[in-house]
Amino acid sequence: MNKQRVKKLQKTLQRRKLDAVLITEPHNRRYLSGYTAADHGIQETAGVLLIPKKGRPWLLTDSRFALQAEEEAQGFAVELYTKGIYALLKKLLPALNVRRLGFESHYFLHSSSAKLEDMAEKVKVELVPLLDLVERMRAIKTEEEIQLIKESVLLNEQVFQAVYKTLAPGMTEIEIALALEQSMQTMGAEGPSFETIVAFGSNAAKPHAVPTNRVLQDGEIVLIDMGLVLQGYCSDMTRTFVIGKAKKKFKQRLRIVRKAQLAGIKAIRAGAVCREVDKAARKVIADAGYGDFFGHSLGHGVGLAVHEAPGLGSRNRKKLQAGMIVTIEPGIYLPDWGGIRLENMAVVREDGCEVLNEDSTGLEL
Amino acid sequence: MNKQRVKKLQKTLQRRKLDAVLITEPHNRRYLSGYTAADHGIQETAGVLLIPKKGRPWLLTDSRFALQAEEEAQGFAVELYTKGIYALLKKLLPALNVRRLGFESHYFLHSSSAKLEDMAEKVKVELVPLLDLVERMRAIKTEEEIQLIKESVLLNEQVFQAVYKTLAPGMTEIEIALALEQSMQTMGAEGPSFETIVAFGSNAAKPHAVPTNRVLQDGEIVLIDMGLVLQGYCSDMTRTFVIGKAKKKFKQRLRIVRKAQLAGIKAIRAGAVCREVDKAARKVIADAGYGDFFGHSLGHGVGLAVHEAPGLGSRNRKKLQAGMIVTIEPGIYLPDWGGIRLENMAVVREDGCEVLNEDSTGLEL
Repeated sequence: MNKQRVKKLQKTLQRRKLDAVLITEPHNRRYLSGYTAADHGIQETAGVLLIPKKGRPWLLTDSRFALQAEEEAQGFAVELYTKGIYALLKKLLPALNVRRLGFESHYFLHSSSAKLEDMAEKVKVELVPLLDLVERMRAIKTEEEIQLIKESVLLNEQVFQAVYKTLAPGMTEIEIALALEQSMQTMGAEGPSFETIVAFGSNAAKPHAVPTNRVLQDGEIVLIDMGLVLQGYCSDMTRTFVIGKAKKKFKQRLRIVRKAQLAGIKAIRAGAVCREVDKAARKVIADAGYGDFFGHSLGHGVGLAVHEAPGLGSRNRKKLQAGMIVTIEPGIYLPDWGGIRLENMAVVREDGCEVLNEDSTGLEL
Repeated sequence: MNKQRVKKLQKTLQRRKLDAVLITEPHNRRYLSGYTAADHGIQETAGVLLIPKKGRPWLLTDSRFALQAEEEAQGFAVELYTKGIYALLKKLLPALNVRRLGFESHYFLHSSSAKLEDMAEKVKVELVPLLDLVERMRAIKTEEEIQLIKESVLLNEQVFQAVYKTLAPGMTEIEIALALEQSMQTMGAEGPSFETIVAFGSNAAKPHAVPTNRVLQDGEIVLIDMGLVLQGYCSDMTRTFVIGKAKKKFKQRLRIVRKAQLAGIKAIRAGAVCREVDKAARKVIADAGYGDFFGHSLGHGVGLAVHEAPGLGSRNRKKLQAGMIVTIEPGIYLPDWGGIRLENMAVVREDGCEVLNEDSTGLEL
């Protein structure tokens, strides 16, 4: 249990006149309780937190997770449900004198909300759908968290370099992706933070390419987008390069993408509007004539989840705050030719930002 | 695209007077379209199917997935959204003359359903929450699917045996879990179907144990629960054994669990009630005096998802049907001592069932 985080949340509950909140989102659950169990998808939870506006918080789970819950969620009262969670809540909410209960609307299934409503009606509890209550806390990292994320970023780069050294024509995308994911594990990561992308030549035109048996040719584009989880915290990095002699066109486009990335990095500081940061990088690509070939947003927050707030996209009018960590990942994608993307992570500071990456592959201008 | 599956679904839509259905659940999406992209959690979809009651089905996605969608979802009209999915649906639904639209209530967030309702109201579309429409189709496997699942089961056993041979006192749980997951990948699997469980001694008392740095002692219990994905289809197997000389108590309890498993297997046939199958196995464990130490249900369906319908639990009154594939995994868990679980998979046949496993580790009576 992270006492400070629970207390901060409880203060928010009091301010919003909520008697308690149900926490169903797994990263939020871990953030508040330290309980690390994984869900089997949203339909099969490993447990739910019930945080009252004051006093001891609860972790509700089933017998399969009983021991792990007791061990990890220190300070939480662990309660097991045998007849489902709603039967347990029906007893617990009146006992805790809960009249207004918040729930995570963005991590609560439509079908489950029908059951929750049924139960709430019977015990006369008013339900309040909430968005991003804990996510807003998570978006701003403490220095301790920044340190953990930096360790994740640096291990990710070490893994990249260990495999990068071995790359040669004749290898397949799958082979390289496997080598990367295996190195992550042997080098101490909990696992990849998302499915590793390795794409050659025209395959690199798909921003979310899945590795295939395509064989690397001399002089062909290699795009690697990879990340890992270390102590719960994610990293995310993309490098694009050529094994052998790079064509002029590649070098030229790589420089444009790098310039766009630097323009994005330059625009980041506490108070900057997210969409303006996206715009700063996008302008470089548009000015070079590739505006139609950069279809995704510039970046996203990273923390316990590999994609979290804030989004650096053209529709986000919110302002960056010190302690946020974002990716800066512009790209150019040309279906018949291939694609280039460069991605680093940075922490937002009062007067600018601090790039967390040290690796410079493909970043020379 | 699987034409037969889409046609079958369209017939169901006609019967239920639905003009179209939105498919958001990723396994259902893959089952119907062949599109294999992975979601980054339920909050970040790689695309949604819109299946009208007749005619060409649609795959709605964003530019990141455009090429993969076109390649994989043969027969589907691929349409990209740039301003979000609801803006696109607002145009598409009236054009397709949709008046009644089904959606997957069990894979639709409460927060998204609010947006869906907004949009539906504007274009005068009636929304119908659906449960398990495609899951009911998926629960019954074709012989072709059974063959794919058998290949997944057999590869999983080969991986188990490759690592089992190397086990020795001094190894850690994490080390063995890593070796298993790496072997899965090098031996051709797409990846593990869930986080591999390796638990020694008292750690085995947690049904969902997470591997730790605990060091294996001579004569200690080893519980391994592992599965992989091959050609999209999952396997799931548990073995419990001892490296070195097993204690009498262990052998005795292992025999009870195996007898319970055999009783469960014997109870499986088309027409058998799911809870009765659970009961048949549970009775063996209860009769031996361990009824309070088998807290989870006997098994679950396996297919494109590692946990799917049908559930073999004490609350499921539905009947098994030929072609269903289930796990049979009784266990005994004693907090201070450890745990034993044995898990095989079987396909339900008219007159009994066919166990898909060939591995016999720990299964001798």
